Amino acid sequence: MSLVVQKFGGSSVRDAERIKNVAEIITAAYKDGSNVIAVVSAQGDTTDDFIAKASEVNPKPSKREMDMLLSAGEQISASLLAMAIESMGFPVVSLLGWQAGFTTSSNYGDARIKKIDTDRMKKELDKKNIIIVTGFQGVNRYGDMTTLGRGGSDTSAVAIACAMHADLCQIFTDVEGVFTADPRKIPKAQKLSSISYDEMLELATLGAQVLHNRSVEMAKKYNLEIEVLSSLTGERGTIVKEDKNVEQMIISGVAKDDNIARISIVGVPDKPGLAFKIFSKLSQKSINVDIILQSIGRNGTKDITFTVEKAKMDDAILIIEESLENIGATSIVADDNVSKVSIVGAGMESHPGVAAEMFEALFEKSINIQMISTSEIKISVLIDKQDSDRAVKAIHDKFFGESD
Amino acid sequence: MSLVVQKFGGSSVRDAERIKNVAEIITAAYKDGSNVIAVVSAQGDTTDDFIAKASEVNPKPSKREMDMLLSAGEQISASLLAMAIESMGFPVVSLLGWQAGFTTSSNYGDARIKKIDTDRMKKELDKKNIIIVTGFQGVNRYGDMTTLGRGGSDTSAVAIACAMHADLCQIFTDVEGVFTADPRKIPKAQKLSSISYDEMLELATLGAQVLHNRSVEMAKKYNLEIEVLSSLTGERGTIVKEDKNVEQMIISGVAKDDNIARISIVGVPDKPGLAFKIFSKLSQKSINVDIILQSIGRNGTKDITFTVEKAKMDDAILIIEESLENIGATSIVADDNVSKVSIVGAGMESHPGVAAEMFEALFEKSINIQMISTSEIKISVLIDKQDSDRAVKAIHDKFFGESD
Repeated sequence: MSLVVQKFGGSSVRDAERIKNVAEIITAAYKDGSNVIAVVSAQGDTTDDFIAKASEVNPKPSKREMDMLLSAGEQISASLLAMAIESMGFPVVSLLGWQAGFTTSSNYGDARIKKIDTDRMKKELDKKNIIIVTGFQGVNRYGDMTTLGRGGSDTSAVAIACAMHADLCQIFTDVEGVFTADPRKIPKAQKLSSISYDEMLELATLGAQVLHNRSVEMAKKYNLEIEVLSSLTGERGTIVKEDKNVEQMIISGVAKDDNIARISIVGVPDKPGLAFKIFSKLSQKSINVDIILQSIGRNGTKDITFTVEKAKMDDAILIIEESLENIGATSIVADDNVSKVSIVGAGMESHPGVAAEMFEALFEKSINIQMISTSEIKISVLIDKQDSDRAVKAIHDKFFGESD
Repeated sequence: MSLVVQKFGGSSVRDAERIKNVAEIITAAYKDGSNVIAVVSAQGDTTDDFIAKASEVNPKPSKREMDMLLSAGEQISASLLAMAIESMGFPVVSLLGWQAGFTTSSNYGDARIKKIDTDRMKKELDKKNIIIVTGFQGVNRYGDMTTLGRGGSDTSAVAIACAMHADLCQIFTDVEGVFTADPRKIPKAQKLSSISYDEMLELATLGAQVLHNRSVEMAKKYNLEIEVLSSLTGERGTIVKEDKNVEQMIISGVAKDDNIARISIVGVPDKPGLAFKIFSKLSQKSINVDIILQSIGRNGTKDITFTVEKAKMDDAILIIEESLENIGATSIVADDNVSKVSIVGAGMESHPGVAAEMFEALFEKSINIQMISTSEIKISVLIDKQDSDRAVKAIHDKFFGESD
């Protein structure tokens, strides 16, 4: 019997009507003869509401207690979704992350899945139950609630699909698939029928909101096909899979990421190993560093600039401040008013003109480039946040034709 | 080192301000040198909000999913309370029912505590942590969320206090203690400085909202002293304990219970064992029967009338209907528009005039008595719901003097 894992985000279950719609999608797959495991996020604004409630009693709550609070969100949506399916006459059971067997690291707020004990889920499928699993959460080895951080529910769904050897993992969102740019901003953006793991990875990393890179990395590792599709239209979406035929299209998409901050360490002595020390400290605290730019040494010192996730900016500054003297650097400059705009496409490296065209598009709109980073399949630039929407449009127009 | 268990109901934590107030109470006890375990209910209207959300997707959700949904309520309040204590600089950890070691029966919505594994709580106390435990909930042997039903958080608190050998269990509510009648309705009601377990049991069973009988029964069994007090005034409350000196006061209080329904089985053949059959079936479904009245046989049949908790009325009717033919009875008549009004007092049996005075008080107000039930320390009457407030006042006036 085939097994489908379906993931529904917060907007897909934001109210009773949407929950019933999702129940229809799940039971339709079940009626078609599939086993179904659905992974669900917290309803619409629940997480924001919880964060607001927390800040009323404590401006800086511990991450442990924050995870305890936030994980109640999926518990609410999962039980409501199970109730909606019950009322349609289907056998269903909701499971919390720990009940579904999720053990994670202890890194509260950004935990990593260590292991999924699939016994309970297998038992429920044997009983012909539809299973609703709370996404985004698990327990650590002390038995404490953890959350998986950004994109966590996607990761939960893909992890279950891999652990349970599912035939397909469907990620339902409020867009119809993966587009060449954000269709809400670029009307001429085109839906891709398929995309390779690597391209999707770049797009995800670069701020396309459809799929988080952790889930794509995992799917790639287990060669699991993911379909990204809308929970409202019923149309086929975009299949993410290993692509054998990547040469024909150079650019698969334009993405932007406003959720980053730029940090510069000024006046770092020009001695080997100092940069390593800094980045090693950041990585110990699970702060991922993205674009790195090191200025050419002047008077025996240099500046090191890099980007981090916006939410990690304050933590990163604290960590660097602690060792500023030790490093011998002068000061720290940080700016979270920046955006990263990127183009992604397999086979890009064999088309050297792509970068030039991208820079030209930005130049024509007088958009200043702060940093540049390239890989085999992507080119990213850091620009002023206020320019980011214009930049995406300019680049998309250049490669996909004028949108209006 | 002494250990205090403190329980805070939903109104005590209904918003940020109240949560901070509760954090003050808890940390004051901790600063005085006690270990503190606080048990907390869901915030104010959370439970009602959840029930409303559930009814939008399913008019009759399963009890399993309902428990999954409802138990998110205490998770929210417990983590917020822990955050408030964190912000005051005290070490604290919140624990869900299952994390605190609560194993219960599988009777969803009305589960019984089977066992408390105290390892985790002991470990946290060893670390000098204040512990916040979600009341009202546990897990069954399948690892599924259960809730303890009415008064469940009181029961959680008393159970922890017994299992951890606490020196005192404080139940904080929105009243200042146990009164001779509901002080919101009877201005002259007097606060008792202490009351015996048995009297409290009768008052709790009879509808006084301050303490649930399950928690009092447990406290009595383990000889645990409970203090009922207000989370707002800071005044000493009422101590519930084994009372050595019960003769002096005859009446300790007047209580009413609107949360009941009356069911009559009409035309039951006058054969032995039939009543037993009916009540055995109800008890199998965990439906507690209270006042029972059996009419004298007429034409070889009799009527059996009894009261049940209002929420159980429909279930009880269904169960009886199933065996109506089998029993040979004619019909069922049910009415949930009734109230039980009771007076409680140790040593009442040696003062036979008490019942007469109570009935006289009702007669003077032309309140009709439908059923009467007495025990060594209480007298209850069933009356029309619309008369209940007047009845309490009339009885209280008779025994404690005119209230205005």
